[in-house]
Amino acid sequence: MIKIPGFLGCGISSGIKRNGKKDLGLIFSTVTAKVAGVFTTNVVKAAPVILGIERVKGGRCQAIIVNSGNANACTGKKGLEDAISTARHVANKLGIDESLVIPSSTGVIGVPLPMVKIKNAIPELISKLSEDGLLDTTKAIMTTDKFPKFASAQMKVDGKFGTISAIGKGAGMIAPQMATMLCFILTDINLDLKAQKLALKNAVNNSFNRIIVDGDTSTNDTVLMLSNGVLENKPIKDGDKNFRKFERILTQLTTEIAEMVVRDGEGATKVVKIIVKGTRTEKDAENIARTIGSSLLVKTALYGEDPNWGRVLAAAGRAGVKFDPLKVDLYYRNYKVVRNGIEILDESKVNHILKQPNFPITLDLKSGKSGFFVIASDITMDYLKLNAQYRT
Amino acid sequence: MIKIPGFLGCGISSGIKRNGKKDLGLIFSTVTAKVAGVFTTNVVKAAPVILGIERVKGGRCQAIIVNSGNANACTGKKGLEDAISTARHVANKLGIDESLVIPSSTGVIGVPLPMVKIKNAIPELISKLSEDGLLDTTKAIMTTDKFPKFASAQMKVDGKFGTISAIGKGAGMIAPQMATMLCFILTDINLDLKAQKLALKNAVNNSFNRIIVDGDTSTNDTVLMLSNGVLENKPIKDGDKNFRKFERILTQLTTEIAEMVVRDGEGATKVVKIIVKGTRTEKDAENIARTIGSSLLVKTALYGEDPNWGRVLAAAGRAGVKFDPLKVDLYYRNYKVVRNGIEILDESKVNHILKQPNFPITLDLKSGKSGFFVIASDITMDYLKLNAQYRT
Repeated sequence: MIKIPGFLGCGISSGIKRNGKKDLGLIFSTVTAKVAGVFTTNVVKAAPVILGIERVKGGRCQAIIVNSGNANACTGKKGLEDAISTARHVANKLGIDESLVIPSSTGVIGVPLPMVKIKNAIPELISKLSEDGLLDTTKAIMTTDKFPKFASAQMKVDGKFGTISAIGKGAGMIAPQMATMLCFILTDINLDLKAQKLALKNAVNNSFNRIIVDGDTSTNDTVLMLSNGVLENKPIKDGDKNFRKFERILTQLTTEIAEMVVRDGEGATKVVKIIVKGTRTEKDAENIARTIGSSLLVKTALYGEDPNWGRVLAAAGRAGVKFDPLKVDLYYRNYKVVRNGIEILDESKVNHILKQPNFPITLDLKSGKSGFFVIASDITMDYLKLNAQYRT
Repeated sequence: MIKIPGFLGCGISSGIKRNGKKDLGLIFSTVTAKVAGVFTTNVVKAAPVILGIERVKGGRCQAIIVNSGNANACTGKKGLEDAISTARHVANKLGIDESLVIPSSTGVIGVPLPMVKIKNAIPELISKLSEDGLLDTTKAIMTTDKFPKFASAQMKVDGKFGTISAIGKGAGMIAPQMATMLCFILTDINLDLKAQKLALKNAVNNSFNRIIVDGDTSTNDTVLMLSNGVLENKPIKDGDKNFRKFERILTQLTTEIAEMVVRDGEGATKVVKIIVKGTRTEKDAENIARTIGSSLLVKTALYGEDPNWGRVLAAAGRAGVKFDPLKVDLYYRNYKVVRNGIEILDESKVNHILKQPNFPITLDLKSGKSGFFVIASDITMDYLKLNAQYRT
């Protein structure tokens, strides 16, 4: 992982997870950073999300304290007090204002945070902060993740190279809206706060909000972006030519993390881009793409490596969008299997594509110029095993 | 199965299914019957559904020809011609008008009907028609069903006992709207056509439209109701006291068939009634109940016999309904596990309920007087096996 000037990280085992794996991480900026955030749209929000939404409004952040193994969700007033208390402890030990610390949690719902363990671990956590420590932070936020997820890029601004890094986690509760559980984006590039918020919103809409593993939306989904300005460039504003460049790089990074999340999607064996085009409006294409990407019958067909295009069309047909089924073309990769609603290519001809871990399915309604895509995983035996047995 | 005066049935093997099982059925009324129908809301409609919708408009029907093993869906113009041709053959052999025959199909999508096999089988089919043959019809419409589904009741009208029987099939592609694949309801009771339509619509809304196995909507879903009036009672009209009674009995029968479909829901081990109450509007309760009943994480928790109430609350929270999570109570059967959004009863206390094949989960938002329920199954390893391997 590339170091980001002015950012330190670490991750340790505090005993929240019974198996001794890392479960507590800290991200610290040596100077106060500007912060933007995107949070779950679920009405049932975890305590750290409720607090995070408040603190992000202030526009400034210097530390993120994050734990795995416990979501601190559905924990009522006590949960909110625990989130505040955790942040306060970290702030006191770091000698910064508590409003500059944002807590974040992921794990089991409905169980109170083990506050004694967390508080006891904070001195060790702070002592281990280092420029190389962000990989450990990444490991400390894993739950059912099979691998740590991070991506970095550099961008030349005012003649100097700035860094943008993203670390993320997520493999379950992956949903149509607000899909990753947690993602933290850190950059030394100076941005105008309004531009930072806009870039983050657009990047999330084009990445995390397009991945579908199981259609469930977490109570804890959080994306935070900290820019500490250590690069000392002139702040990038919306409309600058550097803004489009920054936004493009940011979207690339969040897309990489999003695709890692789908690839890691609890037991997934396939990552399929579902492209819907030729619709009258983008919303129509989005509704159809999301319905196909969420369809259990499509997902099980993908798992079975079965080019069952009938299930794709049937899912499209229940998306709430009127279209003429006798005008529809369907492609597996570049093979046209269906023309004008009926099969023109023996499915056995595309069996070899279905055996690949990644391929696109394109549905063309030929009724307009709009389109949308989502990235979906299959649903496998391992998904069921993980989710039926998680906790018990 | 109780005989219904004036109705004959049969079911044979015509070779559509490769395994030699019954795959072609016929229902025949000795006199022309009044017909009402409810069909899939999917934009992509199978050929027999397109034709059925047209023919039901005429209000009269005398025969239903139904096959399994092939859905005749996504088969284009040829598919529609095949549906018409099948009905015409049956009509010619029976010596009735072809507009009085409604075809129906269930099975694999996208494959043309084997018309030679079907036409060759029609003489045998007609020769085997009998009062006792409807059980064979029920068997002939099974696909992944593990058992034939039928229910009968009697009702006293004008001093005489009339019969209402329903036969159904369905175990996969079970969806929020229009859930069973096929259900045929037969009665010798004379009904005003308008009343018949209304009774059927209400019965379907309160039964088939409330069951959720996998959230997918079939291209072929069809419920047809034939009343041949052989009982010679005064036609029952909307508003008559007999109408309410008829509607209640009909709803009981369709509910029985619907529950059989959920119980048979490809590999299901649990049938759970999800009751949402205390909402401001019925629509709010419906949206929440359907979201919980469709949630993969809830369904896998049910399969794992894990009282993971956090998943139930998280699903409720993404249903698009605003509510206060700190006012919510949750019950497994009569055990209150959550009060005002937080756990008050150790989940281990309800483990014995989760081991039962049927139990209700009640979510009370305590914000109004409306409510709604759905009946949902779990998602199991067997579901995945069936759906990943169906066809291949």
